[in-house]
Amino acid sequence: MTAPHSLILLRHGNSDWNQKNLFTGWVDVRLSDQGRAEAKRAGELLAESGLLPDVLHTSVLTRAIQTADIALEEADRLWIDVRRSWRLNERHYGALQGLDKAETLEKYGQEQFMLWRRSFDVPPPPLEDDAEYSQVGDPRYANLTDAELPRTECLKDVIARMLPYWESDISADLRDGKVVLVTAHGNSLRALVKHLDGISDDDIAELNIPTGIPLVYKLGDDLMPTEPAVYLDPEAAAAGAAAVANQGKKS
Amino acid sequence: MTAPHSLILLRHGNSDWNQKNLFTGWVDVRLSDQGRAEAKRAGELLAESGLLPDVLHTSVLTRAIQTADIALEEADRLWIDVRRSWRLNERHYGALQGLDKAETLEKYGQEQFMLWRRSFDVPPPPLEDDAEYSQVGDPRYANLTDAELPRTECLKDVIARMLPYWESDISADLRDGKVVLVTAHGNSLRALVKHLDGISDDDIAELNIPTGIPLVYKLGDDLMPTEPAVYLDPEAAAAGAAAVANQGKKS
Repeated sequence: MTAPHSLILLRHGNSDWNQKNLFTGWVDVRLSDQGRAEAKRAGELLAESGLLPDVLHTSVLTRAIQTADIALEEADRLWIDVRRSWRLNERHYGALQGLDKAETLEKYGQEQFMLWRRSFDVPPPPLEDDAEYSQVGDPRYANLTDAELPRTECLKDVIARMLPYWESDISADLRDGKVVLVTAHGNSLRALVKHLDGISDDDIAELNIPTGIPLVYKLGDDLMPTEPAVYLDPEAAAAGAAAVANQGKKS
Repeated sequence: MTAPHSLILLRHGNSDWNQKNLFTGWVDVRLSDQGRAEAKRAGELLAESGLLPDVLHTSVLTRAIQTADIALEEADRLWIDVRRSWRLNERHYGALQGLDKAETLEKYGQEQFMLWRRSFDVPPPPLEDDAEYSQVGDPRYANLTDAELPRTECLKDVIARMLPYWESDISADLRDGKVVLVTAHGNSLRALVKHLDGISDDDIAELNIPTGIPLVYKLGDDLMPTEPAVYLDPEAAAAGAAAVANQGKKS
């Protein structure tokens, strides 16, 4: 069986708000120095692998764009075509955006906290349009209808708005024979991996994608995997996934 | 008279090869630390001006892309749409690419040297396809026909391959109501300014566009200027243009 299409997924690394332990979602924070180092390492892994992207798809959030730019500069591929979409954004965290994770856990308790973090179909309370960290009025979303602009999301919502972009724009580049790099976020990439690997609604919560390590899929003509996806640095990926999982438990 | 369209031109700053005093052309060198600082300053000027780009056009050369990315990050606009084209590349410098400017001046004399640098229609000798700094085989030019891929260029050649991109892609974004940022090179921007300001073949050699200072055009419905273009930092622009002119004379 041939696998004519190559897809590389890359999750952005540590941001300023990761370091402050705040819920981020659609708030447009930047990479920390640690996140920049993770992106540089991702670029080194791409260059070493010899599998070089022809086109980049990113979210419209700065931390994903910075990650792509740093990685591609490292791999000498800054010149490839770039496409961006809000549909690749992180999950909108609703009224939790900007809140301290530890304080939120203390206030609402472990059960409610983990429901908001990991439930497939229960979103946090919506963010008010006049709240400090609302995206209403942000010029980058001027082309969205009011109904398209989320005020909160669960993973099910992320899948619903991400998959149309996969099926139209990303798939078009893959069918065009291009090696595609998607640089995005924990939950938008979780949504894509759920689709590609056929993971159930119940099991997807347990999937932890490590940051800064390219994940390579080989896809057949139906744009579904012909073999299990591989991380370009499997040992670091295993350690990274464990760290993300523990972060979830701890906070 | 109304001026419904806004166009911002930005020339990349100092590169590693500027510092080494080598002819660069299509050789894909990177910004020096000084060039990065120039790009950051350009982003500050954009942010202060309040005139913020909706879409970016760059060449496929790393130093122009780095300049755009640094400036847009500074202006909080990394998320805008990006389009790239080889038609915005610097002038191909032919067999001079990679040569030391001072040695070339000594070898060929002032008259020949200035003819290659500033003649409108006399290109340097062509670069051999198997030369170290040839672009034949570079994957970023895989979509060009062999006839399109230059082996040397004079300014007239740059105009001939740049203007079709202005007339199709850049003009389309302007007509779409977008504020357009073009981040490119001394000669591709000189070609565009020649068109917009109606500068003669004889006079264009004297035009020196300073690096790192956004140049703002207000265009009418015919996409021609309704008033003289302005630099966002006029004093620095005047000093910068003089420095570029002197560099030309000195080297």
